[in-house]
Amino acid sequence: MIGLIIFFMSENFFINKNERLDNLNFSNYKIIQDPQKFCFGLDSVLLANFVRAKKNDTIIDLGCGNGVICILLAAKLNVKKIIGLEIQNECVDLARRNLLLNNLQDKIEIIHGDVKNIGQNYKNKFDVVVTNPPYLNSGAINKNMAKAIARHEILCNITDVISNAATVLKNGGKFFMVHRPQRLTDIFYFMRKFNLEPKTLQIVHSFINLPSQLILIEGVKNSKSMLKILPPLIIYDDNKNYTRQLKEIYENF
Amino acid sequence: MIGLIIFFMSENFFINKNERLDNLNFSNYKIIQDPQKFCFGLDSVLLANFVRAKKNDTIIDLGCGNGVICILLAAKLNVKKIIGLEIQNECVDLARRNLLLNNLQDKIEIIHGDVKNIGQNYKNKFDVVVTNPPYLNSGAINKNMAKAIARHEILCNITDVISNAATVLKNGGKFFMVHRPQRLTDIFYFMRKFNLEPKTLQIVHSFINLPSQLILIEGVKNSKSMLKILPPLIIYDDNKNYTRQLKEIYENF
Repeated sequence: MIGLIIFFMSENFFINKNERLDNLNFSNYKIIQDPQKFCFGLDSVLLANFVRAKKNDTIIDLGCGNGVICILLAAKLNVKKIIGLEIQNECVDLARRNLLLNNLQDKIEIIHGDVKNIGQNYKNKFDVVVTNPPYLNSGAINKNMAKAIARHEILCNITDVISNAATVLKNGGKFFMVHRPQRLTDIFYFMRKFNLEPKTLQIVHSFINLPSQLILIEGVKNSKSMLKILPPLIIYDDNKNYTRQLKEIYENF
Repeated sequence: MIGLIIFFMSENFFINKNERLDNLNFSNYKIIQDPQKFCFGLDSVLLANFVRAKKNDTIIDLGCGNGVICILLAAKLNVKKIIGLEIQNECVDLARRNLLLNNLQDKIEIIHGDVKNIGQNYKNKFDVVVTNPPYLNSGAINKNMAKAIARHEILCNITDVISNAATVLKNGGKFFMVHRPQRLTDIFYFMRKFNLEPKTLQIVHSFINLPSQLILIEGVKNSKSMLKILPPLIIYDDNKNYTRQLKEIYENF
């Protein structure tokens, strides 16, 4: 009983006003989220599941937000170090509290910085880059600036993300990104231009008979041209239940 | 009885030694094929089904081979004119005999020429370009030269096809291509470079749980960037029968 009270006290200690505590359902990890900012969704889970890394790899997440992808990767992979880079001060603070909450401060480090500037500071330093960048380059922009920055290419665009990912990766290093299908041409064009060759593409469909809403891309720095398109990833079956494919992804963590 | 004899006589009149006569199962069209060269397959049927055109459109098929895509398009669409461009002399002859066999010489014209040179002769002339070009840029080359030219980038490569397609299309003209997934980055890179913006992508899988073997791409000349990825096209169900999707495609013709 006393343990339970201390447990709740310690969790609440990390949580600010307006924020909420969500259970990640993976390895008992929890995450503080601010509904006024950007809450994690299926795209983060699919990206974390898509990432492949080796035991001694160092990973950087470009634009880590509240740190959810770093935490999911820590739950799934046994790697040397995971760095989360984030430009928004409030998100850096939130991500750091999420590390403390989950006791992951030795495995993950959150750095306050700009994707546009990391190329010069971390040249050829990382084995793996992961990113769930802002998807949109047109349309109405959210009045809430934190949400707008996470969704629209306001502080960095796809060219900044890809060119800097290419610079911070070692030769043969891997790049994993989740994005929207409408941007696939931009993505492949700039990946090729910056020698981050697309190697694997998986198309995600909510239902098998609907157009795609999400894509998962793996690239390798300075690799030869040879793309593999995986079987489609379907989220819901005809009865609107999660498919076996999706259940297996959740079971992976 | 006499009609039947004349019918067979007239068909055999068109067929050379080594060639065979196949039924297309569409609108009673037939096609002469030479098994020593390149025989049409499912990719031609899927491409012809993927093409959209308006009543007064003029279409060119770059590398028309025995003319099968031109004939399938004539079966499906009511357009002004279909041109088939082909570099191999024997294929030009075969395609022209296929037009006569099917009485399509008023609707389709076969031109002997090189994809690499058509840009200068037909600038801004076509509403629609279709193409099923050589897929391969590496690997063992077939000793049979006609098959090798149809499969490998020997006489023209993907850059030649895309740059010349962009040149012969009118502003806003449409480009339809079937190709292999491993070349998607090359394709999108050069389509963007030559202002033939990818608008629609459909990924074809033999079975839903296997990687893709074929892709269908629609581009529009000088259009803005906005790609749609259609629902996946699955060929066989779990019992190795054609799926409903594929049966519907055959019923379209």
